[in-house]
Amino acid sequence: MPEDDPRFADVYDADLGATMLEMSRRVTGVPQYLGIELVGIGPGWVAGEMSVRPELLNPFGAMHGAAVAALVDHVLGSCVFPLIPRGTWPATLEFKLNYLAPVREGVVRAESRVTAITKRTAVVHVDVLNEGRIVATALGTISLNPPKHDG
Amino acid sequence: MPEDDPRFADVYDADLGATMLEMSRRVTGVPQYLGIELVGIGPGWVAGEMSVRPELLNPFGAMHGAAVAALVDHVLGSCVFPLIPRGTWPATLEFKLNYLAPVREGVVRAESRVTAITKRTAVVHVDVLNEGRIVATALGTISLNPPKHDG
Amino acid sequence: MPEDDPRFADVYDADLGATMLEMSRRVTGVPQYLGIELVGIGPGWVAGEMSVRPELLNPFGAMHGAAVAALVDHVLGSCVFPLIPRGTWPATLEFKLNYLAPVREGVVRAESRVTAITKRTAVVHVDVLNEGRIVATALGTISLNPPKHDG
Amino acid sequence: MPEDDPRFADVYDADLGATMLEMSRRVTGVPQYLGIELVGIGPGWVAGEMSVRPELLNPFGAMHGAAVAALVDHVLGSCVFPLIPRGTWPATLEFKLNYLAPVREGVVRAESRVTAITKRTAVVHVDVLNEGRIVATALGTISLNPPKHDG
Repeated sequence: MPEDDPRFADVYDADLGATMLEMSRRVTGVPQYLGIELVGIGPGWVAGEMSVRPELLNPFGAMHGAAVAALVDHVLGSCVFPLIPRGTWPATLEFKLNYLAPVREGVVRAESRVTAITKRTAVVHVDVLNEGRIVATALGTISLNPPKHDG
Repeated sequence: MPEDDPRFADVYDADLGATMLEMSRRVTGVPQYLGIELVGIGPGWVAGEMSVRPELLNPFGAMHGAAVAALVDHVLGSCVFPLIPRGTWPATLEFKLNYLAPVREGVVRAESRVTAITKRTAVVHVDVLNEGRIVATALGTISLNPPKHDG
Repeated sequence: MPEDDPRFADVYDADLGATMLEMSRRVTGVPQYLGIELVGIGPGWVAGEMSVRPELLNPFGAMHGAAVAALVDHVLGSCVFPLIPRGTWPATLEFKLNYLAPVREGVVRAESRVTAITKRTAVVHVDVLNEGRIVATALGTISLNPPKHDG
Repeated sequence: MPEDDPRFADVYDADLGATMLEMSRRVTGVPQYLGIELVGIGPGWVAGEMSVRPELLNPFGAMHGAAVAALVDHVLGSCVFPLIPRGTWPATLEFKLNYLAPVREGVVRAESRVTAITKRTAVVHVDVLNEGRIVATALGTISLNPPKHDG
């Protein structure tokens, strides 16, 4: 698991973090299909996992890149939620994803960490791990939108 | 549909393109779940579509970003296949994706275009369209690996 | 030159555009060292150029990638200026740059185009051209900050 | 300084690393103008610095983003050199750079680390530090070209 980031110790909403972990076991839609579950959360980080299943493999026996991209997208925004005021709405502006090695079996874990955050945006790194090695890495930007929508 | 790129008129393998279109109706796994189908292909481009379905929406009624990312990943590598020698294996090294607007209904179309290609790599732009506007855009790099694997 | 984007015809501030062109001939600092000059501007686009000089080459006779990156950074934010209210402050959040071919001589032109813009952010594509071919391409995100700083 | 990466302890060419440090004090062209110097190198990492000078500031008193981008480009490829066979030629395919905070004075340090490397490509993270905080972060891909050029 990533370490807690002391920069965020004061603002971290531990109750919200606990609720997010609990809710992630009841997701529907795309995360449910992929089997994505949050397995850890803390000040400035989130960890999410999915298991390799036959229907997530491409014809060459490797996990479809789209599944990895979906996992990355899922954990990217999650880590900022417990750091921002209730009502503020985080929206992923963009991310860049590098595929590093094929995934063939086992569990895929994505760990996201907040690298920097202002009132308006957050920048997040994601590492994706499988069988003891790094298989993908990503860097993305989150927009933090105020409760009263202004654009 | 994107226009044919005259730079690739000579190398484009039209038979392979036609086969890819035909095969895309029988995909399994992640693309089948998302309902992704290739709807057009030509020298230097591919177009793929998926329909907005309730299970692809997030709790806020917008298509899950992960579904858009998966569509982008899917069409990214496809457009280089008919431009490279048989046996050469394209692998997506990385892509960057900007989300521009939420998707709520209708059909999502991703159009990929080869911007540049060498013997070793290709660079591809993707635009994602919905209801007459652009909703996402991406830029990615494909590695072109020789038939005899060297790394 | 890129074409005017009809989406921005109404908001484009032509006076500001003309002023930016004029001012670009008197830049100092990094753009002056690199010899970057804006050569065209219009609704949703900017074109900037620099000439290949010996001191911009690396030891292998190709223009240093850093010079291309600097040119891209320079034109990235410029194209949104005439589209936003006076006082709004655009800041580049991030960009991704693909190098496509080495530059050895002649003029390097970067053309930036606004792909999408909201009240809070803009997304911009940049193509870099040299001797009749594309040598780099980029995709970036600009934050549009209100006159009264809120983050 | 970044820590040595034990994955690269065996392949690291310490003589080449020492030579690169020495040579970096005699660079010309763009790195010389910017005042970029390598200040540390080891298995899987490089650190480079430049000082904030008035001519590197933009009209708002912050270091021009182009200077930061140039520094990132410079250290991005450097860290793979001592890990690859002599004669292999690393070329930066692409990078993505997030600006996190303005730089106004002092020294700017960029630290690059090899995240993954194969025979054909390397993926590198870069963090840019100033006055005790992170001011930019980047993620890029390097192509490793064999001595006999094949494309």
